[in-house]
Amino acid sequence: MPKGTVTILGLGAMGSAIAARLRETGYATTVWNRTAAKTEPHVQAGATAVATIAEAVQTGDIILAVLLDHKSIHDNLEPAAAELKGKILVNITTTTPNEARATAAWAAEHGITYLDGAIMAVPEMIGRPGSRLLYSGDENAFAIAKPALETLGTAEYQGTDAGLASLKDMALLSAMYQTFGGLLQAVAMMRTVGTPAAQTAEDVINWLTAVLPVMESLAPLIDERNYDPAPGQDVAFTRPAVASIITASREQGVSADFLEPLKKHLDELAATGRGTADWISVVEQLTIK
Amino acid sequence: MPKGTVTILGLGAMGSAIAARLRETGYATTVWNRTAAKTEPHVQAGATAVATIAEAVQTGDIILAVLLDHKSIHDNLEPAAAELKGKILVNITTTTPNEARATAAWAAEHGITYLDGAIMAVPEMIGRPGSRLLYSGDENAFAIAKPALETLGTAEYQGTDAGLASLKDMALLSAMYQTFGGLLQAVAMMRTVGTPAAQTAEDVINWLTAVLPVMESLAPLIDERNYDPAPGQDVAFTRPAVASIITASREQGVSADFLEPLKKHLDELAATGRGTADWISVVEQLTIK
Repeated sequence: MPKGTVTILGLGAMGSAIAARLRETGYATTVWNRTAAKTEPHVQAGATAVATIAEAVQTGDIILAVLLDHKSIHDNLEPAAAELKGKILVNITTTTPNEARATAAWAAEHGITYLDGAIMAVPEMIGRPGSRLLYSGDENAFAIAKPALETLGTAEYQGTDAGLASLKDMALLSAMYQTFGGLLQAVAMMRTVGTPAAQTAEDVINWLTAVLPVMESLAPLIDERNYDPAPGQDVAFTRPAVASIITASREQGVSADFLEPLKKHLDELAATGRGTADWISVVEQLTIK
Repeated sequence: MPKGTVTILGLGAMGSAIAARLRETGYATTVWNRTAAKTEPHVQAGATAVATIAEAVQTGDIILAVLLDHKSIHDNLEPAAAELKGKILVNITTTTPNEARATAAWAAEHGITYLDGAIMAVPEMIGRPGSRLLYSGDENAFAIAKPALETLGTAEYQGTDAGLASLKDMALLSAMYQTFGGLLQAVAMMRTVGTPAAQTAEDVINWLTAVLPVMESLAPLIDERNYDPAPGQDVAFTRPAVASIITASREQGVSADFLEPLKKHLDELAATGRGTADWISVVEQLTIK
């Protein structure tokens, strides 16, 4: 029995990897792309290419949108709202949580069943171990689409608020970019004394692997707001330690801009009499009052 | 045969852990602390306490300084320069690389053999698996002191430039604080939808564990200055992605200050025609021209 047809809107690196994986696992695919040339290799591999979004939407049971951004979703999908009615629209375009919520509200107005998705993988990982996709929005739509979505990577449902998948995606990416920023700064500091980047990367990764479990053990303090007196390292110790790192970096001719916001938060905690509090209470400074 | 005497200057949490570990492994210890009361538990455990740095220095073969900062090193050791002459001084006080170099120059002027150290461990880890200490400066002094130093943790010699141990320490700590900053921001973002910090910490750590090998594989690009066209993710993609994370964070009422410096560097790369370059070329922006 055929598994049904999935329509893929957008054939960038990610959309192409998704379309290929769906065909590999027995799904029929309909593809649309803004520039039609990109559909050719897919047609050669068995896909049906169509010229308009309205046609693309009509032939699919599940519509997977993998476009550039929130604006391109609305520019392209709004004219096809009538054809999308009654369909399951899975939007895995990268958008912010509020954009996902806005698209969910638009879909609800037009009788479109909406699921928002976030991809925790690069295109090369689609369908391979380690690929992970987060979804939020209509729970029934998730249940129906899950067999197809599971072919792309582990499919994790986050909840009915359509913004949840994007929020978790953004939170994890934020942590990743900051970690990577730290690695780049370490590389810049160590190459001033001739240490190759590859060596510093190995050192940083070994070090982070050793300290990540410490981070995990401190997280319950945050849930308990248990900061003062510090169960771990206090602000009075951490503030000059971070200041020393900034000085050391600049002495080597390397920008310490990445650490300035943390320094500022530690200064604020010290200035408001919280020197004995655990430095991770910085998390409370991050919440905008 | 006795293993010799090690003098420990400074009995804070780290100095105390070091003195206790040396006794456990068969070394005689002489201890000095600015406030004498802290020497009492050490005397009860078999240490010799002395009232002045000059006396402390005379009774030890190796002098381990574990003081507050660079200033306290010089305030306390300069008056005892004559007694330190011919001794091995191992300074594991946290200082910047240039401070370590300045202390090495001062030691050389006074005929003191100098080794600078950096401790990649918390006091509780001293003498246990995972404890790691970096040393730089006089290579012969490292060879002589190594048996005693190895009792504290893996002893790694970095080179004759006395600033190297501190530099590597600062580079790794910089990466750690940035990673931890990223974790705190993710926690702040996710708790706006009720996710406990402990859950977010677990998610972030699993995610970082998955992406750290990718970081390691990209490091050789930096050594080769192989950025354009991007072997990995380019500036044109990364810049709006980081901007979206900043927007998403603020929409949830969470500061995105930690990401602003990265955004600024990506904006600069885009504005100077480097949109097709790999985003990790940000490392070149960190080197102050």
